[in-house]
Amino acid sequence: MAAEMAEQPDVLARLIERRSAVAGVLGGCIPDPLHGIVLVARGSSDHAAVYGRYVLETATGKPVGLAAPSLHTLYRVPADYRRILVVGISQSGRTPEIVTVLERLKAAGAATLAVTNDVSSPLAQVGDAVVDLGAGSEEAVPATKTFTATVAVLAFLAEALGRVPWSGDQWKRVPEAVSEALADDAPPRHAAGVIGDAGGLVVVARGFLFGVALEAALKLKEAAAVLAQGYSAADLLHGPIAVVEEDFPVVLLHVPGPTAADVAELVATLRHRGAEVLRVAPDPHAELPVPGDLPEALAAFPVAVRAQQLAHALALHRGLDPDRPPGLTKVTPTT
Amino acid sequence: MAAEMAEQPDVLARLIERRSAVAGVLGGCIPDPLHGIVLVARGSSDHAAVYGRYVLETATGKPVGLAAPSLHTLYRVPADYRRILVVGISQSGRTPEIVTVLERLKAAGAATLAVTNDVSSPLAQVGDAVVDLGAGSEEAVPATKTFTATVAVLAFLAEALGRVPWSGDQWKRVPEAVSEALADDAPPRHAAGVIGDAGGLVVVARGFLFGVALEAALKLKEAAAVLAQGYSAADLLHGPIAVVEEDFPVVLLHVPGPTAADVAELVATLRHRGAEVLRVAPDPHAELPVPGDLPEALAAFPVAVRAQQLAHALALHRGLDPDRPPGLTKVTPTT
Repeated sequence: MAAEMAEQPDVLARLIERRSAVAGVLGGCIPDPLHGIVLVARGSSDHAAVYGRYVLETATGKPVGLAAPSLHTLYRVPADYRRILVVGISQSGRTPEIVTVLERLKAAGAATLAVTNDVSSPLAQVGDAVVDLGAGSEEAVPATKTFTATVAVLAFLAEALGRVPWSGDQWKRVPEAVSEALADDAPPRHAAGVIGDAGGLVVVARGFLFGVALEAALKLKEAAAVLAQGYSAADLLHGPIAVVEEDFPVVLLHVPGPTAADVAELVATLRHRGAEVLRVAPDPHAELPVPGDLPEALAAFPVAVRAQQLAHALALHRGLDPDRPPGLTKVTPTT
Repeated sequence: MAAEMAEQPDVLARLIERRSAVAGVLGGCIPDPLHGIVLVARGSSDHAAVYGRYVLETATGKPVGLAAPSLHTLYRVPADYRRILVVGISQSGRTPEIVTVLERLKAAGAATLAVTNDVSSPLAQVGDAVVDLGAGSEEAVPATKTFTATVAVLAFLAEALGRVPWSGDQWKRVPEAVSEALADDAPPRHAAGVIGDAGGLVVVARGFLFGVALEAALKLKEAAAVLAQGYSAADLLHGPIAVVEEDFPVVLLHVPGPTAADVAELVATLRHRGAEVLRVAPDPHAELPVPGDLPEALAAFPVAVRAQQLAHALALHRGLDPDRPPGLTKVTPTT
């Protein structure tokens, strides 16, 4: 896991070099008119898809959502997906249900795009267009470099579809910002010590970083076996905050942007409840600081890396092997 | 909470009597052609919306998804929602962000439907059509009768839109099945004792009952302050199962239908890991039995009631007041 985390600046730099070529592939598979976009994924890819749904709806103004795979694999409901772009995401390209859903929705009229780290995989065969993550082999069970690579591809797709709240020039800072976070691992080790042997924790963000919060919670579950749950700041207030008691750890992803005021208000509420608040923020005083010169949507990269570091450090703190969580395999054969 | 749970057979019976009138209201607000459906909700209403996305996509074959409210309230992205039906759900009708999203998507061309327990609320003013849950005042913070009433209205909406996997005749058994579950509270009290003071648990279902699993986890968090997380059976296998250790409680919603074989396989996997498996199933040997004569989608009602009973019993077991979780209010003013 640590070795693959360390490859992220290179993986991202290679993808960013291919940005205009990837945009060409993407541009070729977009229906005209476009009625909406549906993303199909599980696990870490599903969390990248949650990031995608925000940037893709921002770019297109059309409804963007995540598929419910069982409707197509198990219930086999009749579908009419004409003028819908369906994006199937699987690093292995071998999760049976993701392949089946892409096949069935293609047969129902959808334009299909496969995003995968293996262009010889079954998923790649189904896509009208295919984007190769090009992340190199990933061996550790907790996905890291394929997650950030997928986030980048979905951001490129948003650029191909419409206006986005960042500029092309800002991509060159992304691998550097990721390197800077990776080079400084004292904060995540310290934060892991603060979490210690807590029985559970929550990870909170809102808007563009919500998918990263879900992924952070998954890394913490997979690597450190802690009952971590990701929430949007608004969802947390609609009931789940009831579990936040004195000293309960809450990791907050807090980046400047339209949602920052809501997250700041939540920080105050959580501190009032006595929670142990750990902020991932472009603020040198944050428990997990990140570089401050990226727009909100691109800050997803160093913030995701901080979460990976925290999960890795917490696994070591608890004497666990983050690469091999008990009972998990790299390809999960759900149908 | 207990008093409002007990009203559910009457609330549902009244709604079912109004079924054809409600269908008329719903039929009047559906765009032609329909390109898709987007549901807007938070908290318990959001979990009813997850149920809705399954039955509505089954009925229409078109993409159905859940809104990301912040895109419209905070980011204020340009939107084009022509020929999209947007369903805003809020029992109070007063959560500011739900009202704002419905307003903005209406301005973006959507047909709008408001589902609320207060037809004089701001949400009701925005809807092109309004369905009154008619559940009577709900005072306890954990929503119960408004949740099952919302599920019923979304099932009626599916009936108005296309073919559904149940028949109109089967509705008459729903209030009876809910009464039978309510009349038999020994199983939930026993299951609460089994969970005892566990630090966390997960609730799992797949397909039509996935939204009920999310709602069950929320009830357990709100009423009993336990770190409960809802998963689809497939998502659990993509990583989160790492937290399931010896004696970890797992509540499984296991009803006959296309997903039952996958859930049965998961039961075996979880028992192999030593988990404490509690099944909600139409099986007299299940820890939480439900009546067995309802089709999968309508079994959601007695299954949801079993989850409410479990949350209530666990709260009492832990010496908590389920009606007044610390730090929660009935209307959550998120924006």
